[in-house]
Amino acid sequence: MANAKQLTGAGLRGQIAGKTALSTVGKTGSGLTYRGYDVKDLAAKCEFEEVAYLILKGELPTSAELAAYKTKLKAMRSLPSALKEVLERIPASAHPMDVMRTGCSMLGNLETEHNFNDQQDATDRMLAIFPGLINYWYNFSHHGKRISVETDADSVAEQFLWTLHGEKPSALHTTVMQASLILYAEHEFNASTFTARVCASTLSDMHSCITGAIGSLRGPLHGGANEAAMELIEHMQNPDHAEETLMGMLARKDKIMGFGHAIYAESDPRNAVIKAWSEQLAAANGDTRLYDVSVRCEAVMWREKKLFCNADFFHASAYNYMGIPTKLFTPIFVCSRLTGWAAHVMEQRADNRIIRPSAEYTGVEPREVAPIDSRG
Amino acid sequence: MANAKQLTGAGLRGQIAGKTALSTVGKTGSGLTYRGYDVKDLAAKCEFEEVAYLILKGELPTSAELAAYKTKLKAMRSLPSALKEVLERIPASAHPMDVMRTGCSMLGNLETEHNFNDQQDATDRMLAIFPGLINYWYNFSHHGKRISVETDADSVAEQFLWTLHGEKPSALHTTVMQASLILYAEHEFNASTFTARVCASTLSDMHSCITGAIGSLRGPLHGGANEAAMELIEHMQNPDHAEETLMGMLARKDKIMGFGHAIYAESDPRNAVIKAWSEQLAAANGDTRLYDVSVRCEAVMWREKKLFCNADFFHASAYNYMGIPTKLFTPIFVCSRLTGWAAHVMEQRADNRIIRPSAEYTGVEPREVAPIDSRG
Repeated sequence: MANAKQLTGAGLRGQIAGKTALSTVGKTGSGLTYRGYDVKDLAAKCEFEEVAYLILKGELPTSAELAAYKTKLKAMRSLPSALKEVLERIPASAHPMDVMRTGCSMLGNLETEHNFNDQQDATDRMLAIFPGLINYWYNFSHHGKRISVETDADSVAEQFLWTLHGEKPSALHTTVMQASLILYAEHEFNASTFTARVCASTLSDMHSCITGAIGSLRGPLHGGANEAAMELIEHMQNPDHAEETLMGMLARKDKIMGFGHAIYAESDPRNAVIKAWSEQLAAANGDTRLYDVSVRCEAVMWREKKLFCNADFFHASAYNYMGIPTKLFTPIFVCSRLTGWAAHVMEQRADNRIIRPSAEYTGVEPREVAPIDSRG
Repeated sequence: MANAKQLTGAGLRGQIAGKTALSTVGKTGSGLTYRGYDVKDLAAKCEFEEVAYLILKGELPTSAELAAYKTKLKAMRSLPSALKEVLERIPASAHPMDVMRTGCSMLGNLETEHNFNDQQDATDRMLAIFPGLINYWYNFSHHGKRISVETDADSVAEQFLWTLHGEKPSALHTTVMQASLILYAEHEFNASTFTARVCASTLSDMHSCITGAIGSLRGPLHGGANEAAMELIEHMQNPDHAEETLMGMLARKDKIMGFGHAIYAESDPRNAVIKAWSEQLAAANGDTRLYDVSVRCEAVMWREKKLFCNADFFHASAYNYMGIPTKLFTPIFVCSRLTGWAAHVMEQRADNRIIRPSAEYTGVEPREVAPIDSRG
């Protein structure tokens, strides 16, 4: 590798590894855009299916296109029996992201993407099936119940809540879940998306790319921050207790999840959206403790460290108010980010070169193999 | 991304994306080294378990260390019943790499790596179990047989052949499989290894990293070249027919797999090793057709295109002489490369920063969401 270029930072930080027309992150004035639209504008005006359509196909749908797309997704919800049998063999103690990874991989055995012409259908099938997939496993392993995933839910958002709880969710909960799925749908070359693109660059199939991305999102430096935020706030009795807890953690230099971001410098544009929904959920619930302690945490972290809440922090209280078990927070992220991952796979395929960087060698000099009896 | 650096080539080609002490590829005079040892030296003098030990732990084992390591691996071969039940639900029509990916992912549910202190054990378990895992599925789905994977095989190489064929393989076949596993064990920052490192950089678990790598190796630009080479040579009746076939393909500019390499400029150091073994297998077999046509292919491709055989080309005839079905060629690559993948995961974890590059934005300018009825 005599001609290999030395990059300045570890982790390829700030290095351009490819092109995308899907999103911008951290550009002045807009924060986060999907195909040119500000994520806050999308979250205020759209359903998740509109945004999935936008990300995957390039433009927002008309009313007729949206209706057709939702009808297509609704018809694709059923779980193949072999997939259900696999899910029933995964113990309750498993990590729910391992369940998502295995369920996605198994689906690839049963409904293999043989041709890139099938990429949209393969993606739509996963969008339709993932909420039921994780909730089938959750209800079976935790409650011994074989649920039906063929509900009357009108949307992916409603389908998630319906298959989790076994009943039609409230309009408010469905609306919040729509916004949440929109906020998490796409985020440029983050680690899980980059995993999907590296896999796609070998011209592997869609299920391999998404399975790999799920494995990367599972990592605590990436997808698990809203779960960690929940574990932080659930023990806080009131705002003063929250402040006391945080000040103690800061003094001990404990890691505090849900604040700051690798790319955003001043604020995370997604925070204001989910914070406002968390406040409404708190009011509807009557018990505002989780929202109140979260607001105090935000103030303390800004005052002490100039760290802002990222998208994950108020998601913790919002999801909890909707009765979602903490361990299912990151699988919801999968149900949403699948759109961005798949769109990046399609983009990589359309203008591909295999992603094969070089390494700086730091090992030993050339040496000869000694006979085994003379070693040691 | 105002300060992001533009890289010169697509696919990060020639760009240093990290450090490694594991291998060098294409350095003058040595071709391919694992921890300083020439791969040809290792293939001539070692068993695969010695090389796996070297790659994973840094030094070649002593006799006592090797014996202990082999004893450990032998004791880890059994398939959990839930994993067998999953494999039995994957149809014969599935892509065997999808089976490997799903089997690895399922293992992660049953034997989760909860702590990085378990990384060596998690890796050893996969080294021990993968040959039996794929052959359990193959024999069940194709022949309706539930095989026992708890054989008396002395090595990973022997275990693969034994669980495939249901009997102790010949000494020659085991020796060739040892060499083959050594040749494929490690290759710096290739796409599947880089996938594993990106996943590891989120601090995800070992099974997620290996599952993702399997998905990338599945791609036809990466792992499937020996299968494609087999499909090429199996229809060649004799050397003259081979030449005629190739000349026709070259005239039509057909893609011909098994020649040339993204990194090596003049030759692939692994070719001479597997070519010599293929010749010996041909002689032992009595029918030398596949070896003879392969030799002619090598001559024609060099004469016409100055393209040399890479590691995959003579693997096709070698594996075929050992009675291995073509569709299982790439899963053998997994059983071997697992060592390199896992060692890279361990190396990434030891000096980690999340791998999160930037992208060049090529999409539309900022725009506002129009009401759905005014779109189109």
